[in-house]
Amino acid sequence: MSAPTVPPPYTGRPVSTVAIVGAGSVGATLAYAALVRGAARRVVLYDINKAKVTAEAADIGHGIEFISQATIEGSDDIEICRDADLVVFTAGAKQDPGQPRMELAAKTVGLVKKVLPTLVDIAPNAIHMMVTNPVDVVTYAAQKITGLPSSQVFGSGTVLDSSRLRFEISKECGVAVQNVHAYVLGEHGDSEVPVWSSASIGGVPLLDWRGPGGSPLFTEEVRSRIGHDVVHAAYKIIEGKGATNYAVGLAVTRIIEAVLRNEHRVLPVSTRVDDEFLGISDVCLSMPTIVDARGARERLGVPMSQHELTLLRESATHIRDAARSLGF
Amino acid sequence: MSAPTVPPPYTGRPVSTVAIVGAGSVGATLAYAALVRGAARRVVLYDINKAKVTAEAADIGHGIEFISQATIEGSDDIEICRDADLVVFTAGAKQDPGQPRMELAAKTVGLVKKVLPTLVDIAPNAIHMMVTNPVDVVTYAAQKITGLPSSQVFGSGTVLDSSRLRFEISKECGVAVQNVHAYVLGEHGDSEVPVWSSASIGGVPLLDWRGPGGSPLFTEEVRSRIGHDVVHAAYKIIEGKGATNYAVGLAVTRIIEAVLRNEHRVLPVSTRVDDEFLGISDVCLSMPTIVDARGARERLGVPMSQHELTLLRESATHIRDAARSLGF
Amino acid sequence: MSAPTVPPPYTGRPVSTVAIVGAGSVGATLAYAALVRGAARRVVLYDINKAKVTAEAADIGHGIEFISQATIEGSDDIEICRDADLVVFTAGAKQDPGQPRMELAAKTVGLVKKVLPTLVDIAPNAIHMMVTNPVDVVTYAAQKITGLPSSQVFGSGTVLDSSRLRFEISKECGVAVQNVHAYVLGEHGDSEVPVWSSASIGGVPLLDWRGPGGSPLFTEEVRSRIGHDVVHAAYKIIEGKGATNYAVGLAVTRIIEAVLRNEHRVLPVSTRVDDEFLGISDVCLSMPTIVDARGARERLGVPMSQHELTLLRESATHIRDAARSLGF
Amino acid sequence: MSAPTVPPPYTGRPVSTVAIVGAGSVGATLAYAALVRGAARRVVLYDINKAKVTAEAADIGHGIEFISQATIEGSDDIEICRDADLVVFTAGAKQDPGQPRMELAAKTVGLVKKVLPTLVDIAPNAIHMMVTNPVDVVTYAAQKITGLPSSQVFGSGTVLDSSRLRFEISKECGVAVQNVHAYVLGEHGDSEVPVWSSASIGGVPLLDWRGPGGSPLFTEEVRSRIGHDVVHAAYKIIEGKGATNYAVGLAVTRIIEAVLRNEHRVLPVSTRVDDEFLGISDVCLSMPTIVDARGARERLGVPMSQHELTLLRESATHIRDAARSLGF
Repeated sequence: MSAPTVPPPYTGRPVSTVAIVGAGSVGATLAYAALVRGAARRVVLYDINKAKVTAEAADIGHGIEFISQATIEGSDDIEICRDADLVVFTAGAKQDPGQPRMELAAKTVGLVKKVLPTLVDIAPNAIHMMVTNPVDVVTYAAQKITGLPSSQVFGSGTVLDSSRLRFEISKECGVAVQNVHAYVLGEHGDSEVPVWSSASIGGVPLLDWRGPGGSPLFTEEVRSRIGHDVVHAAYKIIEGKGATNYAVGLAVTRIIEAVLRNEHRVLPVSTRVDDEFLGISDVCLSMPTIVDARGARERLGVPMSQHELTLLRESATHIRDAARSLGF
Repeated sequence: MSAPTVPPPYTGRPVSTVAIVGAGSVGATLAYAALVRGAARRVVLYDINKAKVTAEAADIGHGIEFISQATIEGSDDIEICRDADLVVFTAGAKQDPGQPRMELAAKTVGLVKKVLPTLVDIAPNAIHMMVTNPVDVVTYAAQKITGLPSSQVFGSGTVLDSSRLRFEISKECGVAVQNVHAYVLGEHGDSEVPVWSSASIGGVPLLDWRGPGGSPLFTEEVRSRIGHDVVHAAYKIIEGKGATNYAVGLAVTRIIEAVLRNEHRVLPVSTRVDDEFLGISDVCLSMPTIVDARGARERLGVPMSQHELTLLRESATHIRDAARSLGF
Repeated sequence: MSAPTVPPPYTGRPVSTVAIVGAGSVGATLAYAALVRGAARRVVLYDINKAKVTAEAADIGHGIEFISQATIEGSDDIEICRDADLVVFTAGAKQDPGQPRMELAAKTVGLVKKVLPTLVDIAPNAIHMMVTNPVDVVTYAAQKITGLPSSQVFGSGTVLDSSRLRFEISKECGVAVQNVHAYVLGEHGDSEVPVWSSASIGGVPLLDWRGPGGSPLFTEEVRSRIGHDVVHAAYKIIEGKGATNYAVGLAVTRIIEAVLRNEHRVLPVSTRVDDEFLGISDVCLSMPTIVDARGARERLGVPMSQHELTLLRESATHIRDAARSLGF
Repeated sequence: MSAPTVPPPYTGRPVSTVAIVGAGSVGATLAYAALVRGAARRVVLYDINKAKVTAEAADIGHGIEFISQATIEGSDDIEICRDADLVVFTAGAKQDPGQPRMELAAKTVGLVKKVLPTLVDIAPNAIHMMVTNPVDVVTYAAQKITGLPSSQVFGSGTVLDSSRLRFEISKECGVAVQNVHAYVLGEHGDSEVPVWSSASIGGVPLLDWRGPGGSPLFTEEVRSRIGHDVVHAAYKIIEGKGATNYAVGLAVTRIIEAVLRNEHRVLPVSTRVDDEFLGISDVCLSMPTIVDARGARERLGVPMSQHELTLLRESATHIRDAARSLGF
């Protein structure tokens, strides 16, 4: 029997809220990963498909007994996102059979144009993270649409691609992936650039790492194979299971933690770059960036070889062209 | 440069291995949940669909950087399950359109008959947990097929159903789900029995819990509504998203922890019941059971009303009939 | 090289802050436990002993690399507690050799009188949790001193005693402590009351639990032994190691989680009781209470035997007398 | 009522066991950290002081309800360490007032000589980790005493010193400590060597990191100050609180995880070095080393400046001299 006394006036403060827009495979798995990891204590899930969003929230909610206390709600009413601290945009247009890629991108950007202003309106102090692909173009468009500073509207970028690269390097050298430091920069997509020249394993430059026989392990051939596998990892997974969702759920959860816990973490997220030294401007792409409660902040200048820098500029051009062709 | 010295002879011991049979929605989400929760440090995933099982393992593996160190491997060769400590069986027959339920069950039991003996052969010291539905019948069949003791071959039972019941009770009374203690017993299916008479909330008998106005909150009407929602939760989720996977992933992870950590946890898993006092025999169904490294051990005698006991016996009859009709 | 751009205006919100007052054995271990558990992301530690508080903060801070990102600061300036969300008071007077207990209590209450108003002043929206002993008297005094509602100023009470009771019951019956539900209520001290009548193990009433031979395990003799051990646990630990700090660190961390995560958890914390039905009034003592972001809220009415109720009233009288003798 | 059936024959496998030798401040805090972090599920604590070891185990055990299920036992009978998977040696001789340092070291080595053979005898397959200071000398002596391979008997080395260095660098540059990569190598003690030349922050060489004004942040002056603070951190903490225990508890927990989870982690642990290229031989000191279930395995060759290499050789000489003077 709970004593039916009048509750005292509120004196605490609300629990941080993560709003996830889109209850597709990525959005729902992200909600799950964020709650299971304890990165978020209150998750709201918004999708226009009421039956789907309600079902995903219920399926996740039924498991809360087994993790630490948290809440998840699903709704087809965007109002559920009100006053969120962090909005993660995973919604995208549905691909029609045979539809060209740029047409799909145009539809997706149209969706962002339609939904994002309302989100900014009802969650004005939120950090907005774009996950929907093509993420660099979508992030650029989102900044133009909202007029918010680059720090407050950024993209999940190549955090996932970098973890794939580290995973492959780890398998090759037999050292824990947590000791492998390497970035994929530029586009989250086909033109992305694995930065081998500054990669390291437990403090040893990757290019100096030697295999069992004493000769360099990461030969051009090995790097080329790994680079290819990383760029094509998503395709292969989609071929095998129809979608990618698990790793991206954890990668985005990592970014959520950096923001909500004010971590000052270095993560290769996608932000607007205007950098004379790099020779890249007016485009969103991934560079190592400090992420904390203020969003995506300073970019770090990691060393790159001339060849890598050239590839990065080509990647920038590629993204900029795509944005332009979509009217941004 | 790693010194190319000859590694010393092995002196440690292998990391505990969980083998998951079936890389469908349940099997893959379970692998993910078990690794993200840290319940398992080595997971092997087996499925006859090579492209699928490889893709699921890769998608999960790419996220390992973000959690604590662990490994996951996927293969279509059952040998990958060799010497596992715990085998979790999630594989089932595919439902053909319009196929009657019992026909599907027959196909599933046929699959168990075909695969399980090999698993017992290559992982003779493993605990075997059945998750595939109809789980109580499958567990009964698995015991007959393997001849292993009931403790070593048990089913995930109503652990998930009980967490759904607790979730609904928690929502109703506004107390953390971790403080709600209530079981769903009997069949994991339509004849399952929510045991209201011994349910409690923070030490208060549920039937005594009072709402804001001071009158009992869990009236027959409310209990009936919640009971209905729990039994039909899976249907509703399947309707909305095509499958259930998230909560079951966490529920089974909870059981995995109880086994691998030798926890002596009380969980409503499905074991063979031959109990004069209950008036139930020669059937597998869920009762609160102590689970640890030796598997599913002693059953607890939780108090039940006469009505609940009657429903439990009916549930037992229902499961037994299904088993008999499948030749077990 | 970090791009020396001007940081954008702040758009996120500050990380929750726990202020711990007192860097003695309990305060420092609590800071450690709360950070290692991830219950708090920002901890500030205040103590008048500058060398000590700085050393404790440094020793904990050096370990942050190994846990998830967080911050800890120590200072002898109370200003460090400004705008905390939760203030945990662990400071107490130093016991002089041969000093009578009530004299020590008087000094401790004097300390609370001196420090607490400043804390309320600089952290006006904080929940204040008293841990310093005699905690029930200190909590009562703290409410009188601050005039804040009972929900906002409560004591850690018998959360630790209850976990000791559960630990001993768990050892006796061989079931995981997480499945044992039992409270110690009343005073956090010699007059505390283990409530056996409503205790349960995995849903089975404790008094019905049977041992290997089939006869009741928790006989009056066993209960009396366990009750004695629980009341004297602290004395025995202090005898062996000079202080208790580890379990209390985790117990208070549990309460911190309930507040910061708005968990609606049932915990036996110490609040002011004025309850006609219980026949207890104008005293602070521990009863099962819902704890969340608003602090200690509704009390639950767990069933008790007439004997237990009598003991609880005696415990209340004992605490009230102590408070009166200290002028409260 | 638990059904009093005969338990089935054991089919699972025992939970990994960590034996901690010495229940002093370091040993007890390590037991706490390892359990709270979930790094160990069964900890046994051995100390000759029965009252103390029992009290520490009880104080930690009472908190198990609040973490995941685990066990801790304390005993003054060394038999409790039987069949441990990992033995962590934290016991040391008590310092008499005014006793010279080398005399204390001699007593400590005498203690190792007395206790270690029994530990190797009763836990023959264990990895043995030495934490007692002077750790490099103690590790060298332990290898001589046991005759076990260097991989199987290693020291906790400069894992803690490295985390202190990273903490100070993190504070200076405002980036999360988890993104700072820097080692302290050589002796765990006054002659230790911070390796600045290969340190990096988020992939940027530390020596290239620029502060707000655009000029290098880690000037010789700043490095010298940080280096001094790191070497003297322990002294300052001991001055303020009498001992260091919290960070070392987490540092050693990190190593425990690497072993029990077979992580292949790079950690600067102390192993025997005989390296022509380095010009160092017949001594134990810390170098980045891959640690997994087989213990401390390959050493990595991180780049060092000529000056750092010189300091490392001096550190080696310093340790070797100390070992020689103790008869090893």
